[in-house]
Amino acid sequence: MVNVAILGFGTVGSGVAQVLAENSAEIAAGAGEAVQMKYIVDVRDFPDSPFGKLVTHDFAVVEQDPEVQVVVETIGGCGVALAFTRRALEAGKHVVTSNKQLVAEHGRELLALAKEKGVNYFFEASVGGGIPLLRPLFNDLSGNKILAIKGIVNGTTNYILTAMQNRELELDAALKEAQALGYAEANPESDMNGMDAVRKACILANLSWGRELKPEQVSVIGIQNVQLQDVRNAQAAGGALKLLAWLSKADDGQIYAFVEPHVVMGSSMLCHVDEAYNAVIITGNAVGDALFFGTGAGSIPTASAVVGDVVDAVRHLSAPRGIGWTEEPVLLGDPDTLVSRWYLRSGSEYTVTEPCSASQLPPAEVRYRVLD
Amino acid sequence: MVNVAILGFGTVGSGVAQVLAENSAEIAAGAGEAVQMKYIVDVRDFPDSPFGKLVTHDFAVVEQDPEVQVVVETIGGCGVALAFTRRALEAGKHVVTSNKQLVAEHGRELLALAKEKGVNYFFEASVGGGIPLLRPLFNDLSGNKILAIKGIVNGTTNYILTAMQNRELELDAALKEAQALGYAEANPESDMNGMDAVRKACILANLSWGRELKPEQVSVIGIQNVQLQDVRNAQAAGGALKLLAWLSKADDGQIYAFVEPHVVMGSSMLCHVDEAYNAVIITGNAVGDALFFGTGAGSIPTASAVVGDVVDAVRHLSAPRGIGWTEEPVLLGDPDTLVSRWYLRSGSEYTVTEPCSASQLPPAEVRYRVLD
Repeated sequence: MVNVAILGFGTVGSGVAQVLAENSAEIAAGAGEAVQMKYIVDVRDFPDSPFGKLVTHDFAVVEQDPEVQVVVETIGGCGVALAFTRRALEAGKHVVTSNKQLVAEHGRELLALAKEKGVNYFFEASVGGGIPLLRPLFNDLSGNKILAIKGIVNGTTNYILTAMQNRELELDAALKEAQALGYAEANPESDMNGMDAVRKACILANLSWGRELKPEQVSVIGIQNVQLQDVRNAQAAGGALKLLAWLSKADDGQIYAFVEPHVVMGSSMLCHVDEAYNAVIITGNAVGDALFFGTGAGSIPTASAVVGDVVDAVRHLSAPRGIGWTEEPVLLGDPDTLVSRWYLRSGSEYTVTEPCSASQLPPAEVRYRVLD
Repeated sequence: MVNVAILGFGTVGSGVAQVLAENSAEIAAGAGEAVQMKYIVDVRDFPDSPFGKLVTHDFAVVEQDPEVQVVVETIGGCGVALAFTRRALEAGKHVVTSNKQLVAEHGRELLALAKEKGVNYFFEASVGGGIPLLRPLFNDLSGNKILAIKGIVNGTTNYILTAMQNRELELDAALKEAQALGYAEANPESDMNGMDAVRKACILANLSWGRELKPEQVSVIGIQNVQLQDVRNAQAAGGALKLLAWLSKADDGQIYAFVEPHVVMGSSMLCHVDEAYNAVIITGNAVGDALFFGTGAGSIPTASAVVGDVVDAVRHLSAPRGIGWTEEPVLLGDPDTLVSRWYLRSGSEYTVTEPCSASQLPPAEVRYRVLD
């Protein structure tokens, strides 16, 4: 039997507790042994939760208990989460997380520490929520040179753009609706300005190409200024407006990385990804295009990915997977030199261009790349 | 360094050799050590191939060489492939295959033998070609109760149905085109009658629920009798005609398993899967719906999955994954009791019903389930 501690009993942490309890038979079958929750670490108490008696306020209890072999970090952010993750790894415990900010900003250091200590640091839930994505990338597709990754990795903005398209809502109204339904947080800034997608893009790039892409190296345009008329025009042109994360590696080794609204044409599967769903296309030189689609957020779907990591950690207690990336900087290409078709609008007039680079474009009030 | 032997140098086997050679750096990084092709076993010689000097006609050379730790079986069928797989496993070698017929008909026995010998028997390429699908199912989604799996798992029939839809071809003309382009074999029987999809459905069911579903237990309607008017009507109704493999598990433990043409509505991602692509939706009680899409056949995409299995086998030379299923029969449900909407046609008149079971339907010349 393996004992697990959950750090942070919020949306994701409580989902992990629920899935560990409800699917214990499947989890034991997958892991090869029973997985038991021993502690939940949180500053609050949860007297009404069926797991309330597991709560402790003191991380040191977990840190010093040799029976705890796997720690689930669902605190979020880079404060306490970073400190506790370091201490758990130092104590020789495997750590599993859904914390994309921590992985994007400190993943290299934490993976190196995990390697040094002979344990796993897994973060499947940090990109694409419940969708199996990172493990297929570094396991199933390990016989490929990864050429490109393109995807819808932020469910909040996809919900908003879908609402604008299907129900003719202005951006502000769609955002308010997303907040009312729990698809957007009270402070939606990192979703709206694309930073959340940037962090996920960095994690994907780091795993694909082994060098550290930093969030500040990713060119970003959020959806804050998207107008209803652009959403309408995209649909009239046979597509849909989507916020895409784009990563590609050229033959010369240069990496192109940006997050921007795109007009995605109906011939692409990504055009049909609506509501809060996520989808990512990984292009490998052997597999061609492989697409992964599903629920990119939410308590229980995200917990599915976290628990999948727990199972894999238990299966590899003494043989860690050894993923990671180096400090060596990426060779960064200039996105403006990448050839694509473009959506251009000035006033109420729009056009879709032939393939060209950004420097060849005429002036326009709005310009978005087109994905065919 | 790990030595590999490839059995059968046909479409898939030659692709595996090419990918192992071309992506050797990525493969070594993923596997943690170099992977080298030592032998290719085939009855023929390949003097013009860059790998021609590795060819031997005698499997016993592989069997008796202790340096060969991983054997790739890409012979196909249940004759020599079965005999060589048994002998390789008996000799303590890990075996990786793309052979869906062998896995569907003899997988349980071969997995039990692999377990007994402490080695892996992997078959990611047997369903969905290059698409990462089986490993995500038994690794990433191991924290889920699997509720249902629905998918397009035969690229030949999907190519034919897409050609009929987009270019108004009759079935025979579309089949001939698929054969001319290499999407269908000279003898397309097992594609057209749905048996290929049945085998893949069995593999998915066995991995999901741990009991053996036999091909003869799967109710099957192929596309042999699909008429152009039904393809047209499906499109007019806002969908597309697709051959789907359907698996679901009810609360009482009963398994429903069938392969039938469906009218898939535009609200489902499966409606947008065209040409020879495959896509499978796995529904888990935690993850919800997760969809996996990509190239379901072809030399190099299939090789991508085979090589991914080789890498995973190398990573687990002394700690096999231990997947498998028991001989215990599944509780088989009657598909006719499953409620769905239906497409009914008599003469040139068609209708789409409200949700009901098959027994509640009026007589009709053609009836297909509707997937919303």
